[in-house]
Amino acid sequence: MVATRGRQAVGTKEAIMATAERLFAEHGVTAVSSRQISEAAGQGNNAAVGYHFGAKSDLIRAIVHRHDAQIEQSRRLLVERIEAADAGAGVRGWVECLVLPLTEHLAAIGRTSWYARFSLQISTDPALREIATDEVLAAPSLGPILQGLRAGMPDLPEDVRRERLQMVRSMLMHTCADRERALAASGEPPKAAWARTATLLVDAVTGLLLAPATPESGF
Amino acid sequence: MVATRGRQAVGTKEAIMATAERLFAEHGVTAVSSRQISEAAGQGNNAAVGYHFGAKSDLIRAIVHRHDAQIEQSRRLLVERIEAADAGAGVRGWVECLVLPLTEHLAAIGRTSWYARFSLQISTDPALREIATDEVLAAPSLGPILQGLRAGMPDLPEDVRRERLQMVRSMLMHTCADRERALAASGEPPKAAWARTATLLVDAVTGLLLAPATPESGF
Repeated sequence: MVATRGRQAVGTKEAIMATAERLFAEHGVTAVSSRQISEAAGQGNNAAVGYHFGAKSDLIRAIVHRHDAQIEQSRRLLVERIEAADAGAGVRGWVECLVLPLTEHLAAIGRTSWYARFSLQISTDPALREIATDEVLAAPSLGPILQGLRAGMPDLPEDVRRERLQMVRSMLMHTCADRERALAASGEPPKAAWARTATLLVDAVTGLLLAPATPESGF
Repeated sequence: MVATRGRQAVGTKEAIMATAERLFAEHGVTAVSSRQISEAAGQGNNAAVGYHFGAKSDLIRAIVHRHDAQIEQSRRLLVERIEAADAGAGVRGWVECLVLPLTEHLAAIGRTSWYARFSLQISTDPALREIATDEVLAAPSLGPILQGLRAGMPDLPEDVRRERLQMVRSMLMHTCADRERALAASGEPPKAAWARTATLLVDAVTGLLLAPATPESGF
């Protein structure tokens, strides 16, 4: 009896998270209320979000965390593979560690993914961006990647490198959100589209990071 | 008498636009209501936004348009200068036409600019992004810039070039919004900070656009 109730609660939480992600992506995170999510998730009780998650920001945090935990897992595998190899990865190899876990995660969800659009909003909303930052800081595999990139760009001043990596982060999010939106509207097979996006991003990010820096920009 | 009323109306509209831009940038476009803007702009009448602009989206459109008209003006001057010179600009010269009018516009506003943060939200919000797209399509100076960039990247497949230019657009917006936020919190002189950001962006964008494309990404 208790076990059944536990399973039901898990099912309800899943339904709420999936519904919230879709509504947020379609209508905007701020525009959608906890009450609307509860209703759209088929919960008779309009306070279901509050009961299962607490505040709307806690629900958002739970959605972000679930995706990021999966992305972090495949990123760690890629990093371990590079670290096990004798030869260094080079900048392009470390860039792949940043790009592929994200695009492959989205490809695995398929045509009905909402996460890239949702995630972009979280990171641009003044009240919510801290949730995204917390998750990034909690991803241990990013350490070796940043170290590998630093080693591959020895001539770049530290502050230029830091700012370029920030550019890369927003570029990844924006491009994936744009692709996700286009994919939802087109008949293109998701796996091929995401593989193509991954190549586009790896090329562009590698070029961006390896570009020579005009001396003044180091000040 | 009529002239005085006309001037008052212009003053009221200016006050509403300035207040709205700040509140949107600080709290998020969707989180702030027309009523809150009217109140914060010191309007006794809580319906002042509706009276002077119509819907909230019309107010947003007016703010976007005012900035973009100024940015477009200095972009046209840069393009004319390149077109008057005998030598071509090269990719870097055309990239400067994209970057400098924006960073110089923000530098001219100074430490209290909100526009970059506001603008980023408009372009990521599912319900509002069309406003930003309309303005871009209405900027005649972008035509020769895109043509110049295309001529400078003859080996890049058309679809890769298009996607990279989309990446550039979101990178510019994100980086300027980040810089604006940092500037508001720091004591750094705005002119120097924006000049430094411009150099960072021109270097990075040029590297991104000129990066070789892996053949598969052309499909």
